[in-house]
Amino acid sequence: MTENVKINRGLKGIYFERSGVSHIDGAAGELSYRGYSIHDLATKSTFEEVCYLLIHGELPTQDELTAFDATLKAARELPDQVYDIIRATKDGHPMDVLRTAVSALAALEADSQNVGPEAFLANGLRLTSQVPMIIAAHENIRNGRDPVPADKTLSHAANWLWMLKGEKPSEDAARLADVDFILHAEHGANASSFAARVTIGTEANLHGGIVTALSTLAGPAHGGAAEDVMKMVHEIGTPDNAAAYVKAKRKNREAVTGFGHRVYRAEDPRARHMRDGVKKLGEEMGAPEWYEILQGVVDAMKPYARHGLNVNVDFYSGVIYQLHGIPMDLYVPIFAIGRMPGWIIQCMDQQDSNILIRPLTLYNGPDMRPYTPMTKR
Amino acid sequence: MTENVKINRGLKGIYFERSGVSHIDGAAGELSYRGYSIHDLATKSTFEEVCYLLIHGELPTQDELTAFDATLKAARELPDQVYDIIRATKDGHPMDVLRTAVSALAALEADSQNVGPEAFLANGLRLTSQVPMIIAAHENIRNGRDPVPADKTLSHAANWLWMLKGEKPSEDAARLADVDFILHAEHGANASSFAARVTIGTEANLHGGIVTALSTLAGPAHGGAAEDVMKMVHEIGTPDNAAAYVKAKRKNREAVTGFGHRVYRAEDPRARHMRDGVKKLGEEMGAPEWYEILQGVVDAMKPYARHGLNVNVDFYSGVIYQLHGIPMDLYVPIFAIGRMPGWIIQCMDQQDSNILIRPLTLYNGPDMRPYTPMTKR
Repeated sequence: MTENVKINRGLKGIYFERSGVSHIDGAAGELSYRGYSIHDLATKSTFEEVCYLLIHGELPTQDELTAFDATLKAARELPDQVYDIIRATKDGHPMDVLRTAVSALAALEADSQNVGPEAFLANGLRLTSQVPMIIAAHENIRNGRDPVPADKTLSHAANWLWMLKGEKPSEDAARLADVDFILHAEHGANASSFAARVTIGTEANLHGGIVTALSTLAGPAHGGAAEDVMKMVHEIGTPDNAAAYVKAKRKNREAVTGFGHRVYRAEDPRARHMRDGVKKLGEEMGAPEWYEILQGVVDAMKPYARHGLNVNVDFYSGVIYQLHGIPMDLYVPIFAIGRMPGWIIQCMDQQDSNILIRPLTLYNGPDMRPYTPMTKR
Repeated sequence: MTENVKINRGLKGIYFERSGVSHIDGAAGELSYRGYSIHDLATKSTFEEVCYLLIHGELPTQDELTAFDATLKAARELPDQVYDIIRATKDGHPMDVLRTAVSALAALEADSQNVGPEAFLANGLRLTSQVPMIIAAHENIRNGRDPVPADKTLSHAANWLWMLKGEKPSEDAARLADVDFILHAEHGANASSFAARVTIGTEANLHGGIVTALSTLAGPAHGGAAEDVMKMVHEIGTPDNAAAYVKAKRKNREAVTGFGHRVYRAEDPRARHMRDGVKKLGEEMGAPEWYEILQGVVDAMKPYARHGLNVNVDFYSGVIYQLHGIPMDLYVPIFAIGRMPGWIIQCMDQQDSNILIRPLTLYNGPDMRPYTPMTKR
């Protein structure tokens, strides 16, 4: 037994691969996709353009973007069996239903087993369009409504809100969803992307990688933070209670939801864009108190910022969804819509220079012992 | 950019956790579960007893085993919706259908979202019984037959063959399946178990971990070896061709399927038990040529054994399945039946002392660059 080996719990600080897709400077609180600052992308780009950028490495020309967009729009189709499967599982958590439908698509679509680079990309773009369709169809079906057919003239974000609610969203609402998707599109070796790479490392197909990513994102410590923040906001109730809430949590040494991140030691650079959106939307909708509760928590948490306890992206997104009347159990699925291009490019990169990802556990169990027959136990 | 960091591709040689479940001595070619040699377990134990041992850490007394076995047998039930989902996806690969059905069970069963230790175990034991039911039901449905209801009086292995074929298996056939499941039950931080741990690291539920494991096992570089060996055996055709086949492969620097393993540098200790089974079964069934082809390949590969290219467990199992008339695309699902207890205990251990598993990628993309508006591209 080698007892002197180092155990890297959580693989913290371990580099397993190089990647040129996104760069996180945790100390400075900076994030860039392919060399472009998240701040530029969140204010000047669109989700479709960011998908192209992440997958192909460069910003598209107008012709390239038009063709890419047409591919995404054409893919807004689901086999009938997927609707049957959503109906059969409609009372489940939306993440379980989404994962089941994506897994079924691997069985239903002819080229899903093809792991050549072109097929990988084609399957990825098709799934990018199918994932929001599945989530919206489930939300309609579980509320006794028929699924709303996709509108192939709308943007990815506007079509999502259209399918979800059955009414055309305002420009502001569509833009806010667009920015949300951009901010969530890619984030290095986060647990879901890393798990997807482990799956692809065995030469599995793209659907397999995305199913793994969905399973992993579903955990409260990964995709569930926005939902947890919203529960906290409801628990706090009014802006006046925020300081006392934080004080009590800190006194009991409990974590305050929406603060802290494995990688960032400064403010999560994605947070500011969601913060601006929450403030504006709350004022427009005559519900400024949600923003005020959040800011009350931020103010009360300021003394802990030097310990790296800064606000993260999910701190604000829940309130935006709530103001849009979106049920809490759809917050993680919305994260999944945004993360699709990140998962796809990471699966493509893994497959491009593939290696089995297989670390070790150090044995700490019993020494070898003889098998005792049942009569002697 | 920190360019001097070490990149641990494939996480080869990196320890991420301690574990007392199984021990692999790759250099000596030894494998033990909880301190018991795989050779003792493969010759003296049963799959049910091995499940108990892996999950609870000790061999059961007769009363403990009786109660455990009763729990597994009582769990031989599937909701009607699962059969509907299998019918909706019946033309897909059996691994995709199995994964879809397991994912659906998370949406269909009341306690699937409970991540407390008792619920984790209860969900795991239920899935252990459900996984072979799903595979057998799919095989019957895709061949136009009704699913064969589980027989709650039979052992796990005998019931599997009964549901698959609709006839009671011989004692020898049931024992061979039992040994196959024992040999595949657990194997450290292999890619599927490791990926499942990454999923559970986000505090996801057990079904999520098993879905990830199934996605990962499906890759040809993990669970697909038995199928690949069978294809090779068919390609070789007769024992006389084996030496020439190996020579040509080595000359072209191509891998010979069924040889080599990330961890073992000696013969995979599981191989001998399958080898004995192949030989005996082939002779009994008047088809000794399959074993002879395999041995021809082994003899021709002997010069490369000092490079660590020894036969692995999957080298023999495909021929056993073929002699039983089992279609090739069920070989990976059979591996999954056996691996269930290993996945379950690894998910339980991960959850018991949980930490987010999130390594890093080293950025090698473009330096920061200004966003170029569309008109200037």
